[in-house]
Amino acid sequence: MDALDAVITKIEVREFSPEEVPYDVQKKVLEAGRMAGSAYNRQPWVFILINDKDLLKKVAALATTGPYISKAAFAVAVFVDPNNPFHIIDGTRAVQNMMIAAWSLGLGSVWVAGLEREKITELLKVPNNLYLLTIIPFGKPAKNFKGKKRRKSLKEIAYLNYYGNTLK
Amino acid sequence: MDALDAVITKIEVREFSPEEVPYDVQKKVLEAGRMAGSAYNRQPWVFILINDKDLLKKVAALATTGPYISKAAFAVAVFVDPNNPFHIIDGTRAVQNMMIAAWSLGLGSVWVAGLEREKITELLKVPNNLYLLTIIPFGKPAKNFKGKKRRKSLKEIAYLNYYGNTLK
Repeated sequence: MDALDAVITKIEVREFSPEEVPYDVQKKVLEAGRMAGSAYNRQPWVFILINDKDLLKKVAALATTGPYISKAAFAVAVFVDPNNPFHIIDGTRAVQNMMIAAWSLGLGSVWVAGLEREKITELLKVPNNLYLLTIIPFGKPAKNFKGKKRRKSLKEIAYLNYYGNTLK
Repeated sequence: MDALDAVITKIEVREFSPEEVPYDVQKKVLEAGRMAGSAYNRQPWVFILINDKDLLKKVAALATTGPYISKAAFAVAVFVDPNNPFHIIDGTRAVQNMMIAAWSLGLGSVWVAGLEREKITELLKVPNNLYLLTIIPFGKPAKNFKGKKRRKSLKEIAYLNYYGNTLK
């Protein structure tokens, strides 16, 4: 899918089909994250690809706003180094790359922020000096999934050269 | 350009061609940002499209790490609402959308973080309750631009199910 089409059409997906996603496609999603830009090219991130079904259920039980992780084909837990002052920005750049690439490959996803971070970090055996930014569940959208994308109009959020100066 | 190719090949560009970029292309970049996902769909962002040459120079003079803003065809200043707990994440998602879409349209860009934020906010007449996340200069890469993308290998940054468990 064309990149511009991908960012324009991409929508949050929380309802997943039980269909499996090939491992090489899962790795393409990781690659998309790996290739993100970061401040001083520090790449202050660690990705845990979760595709074990039992583990997905355990993680979902610790995700206060992400029970649908249990139904995902796979998920990626993104950890970042909090000693890096750009860790939130850089981690987010990697995540957005993954979500856009996944969408272009036919996979929906959603940002899950409500997490029992300490417990999940321990469950995944990740050193506790890393910060769990988010867990993104990925999977083909469920057959009955109907997304409606609602956004403010460009005129509501963008101006030309100076705030208040309407775009042509 | 295919979305996966775009995120894989996209590289930071700081050297711009003097070539103009049509206004409708500039607006496509804004559209890519507008369509980003955000927590609770709050869209806590304001974009200032800067394409006035004098203004680009003035902004560049206030960008401690971004003098090349003066040579950009246009730039987008991204402001976010700091009262929204997800303002850094959500603003970054919009920026990453813009950078990927721009790259697929033949435009380079780079994240500029070193900014005299108060002075730029005043210059652009933006209410000072908004936070200037970044200014992104956009333009066709200079003819002599040669980018080399260096990233850690996937095995250095990604694991399967548990930290330390090597990817197949």
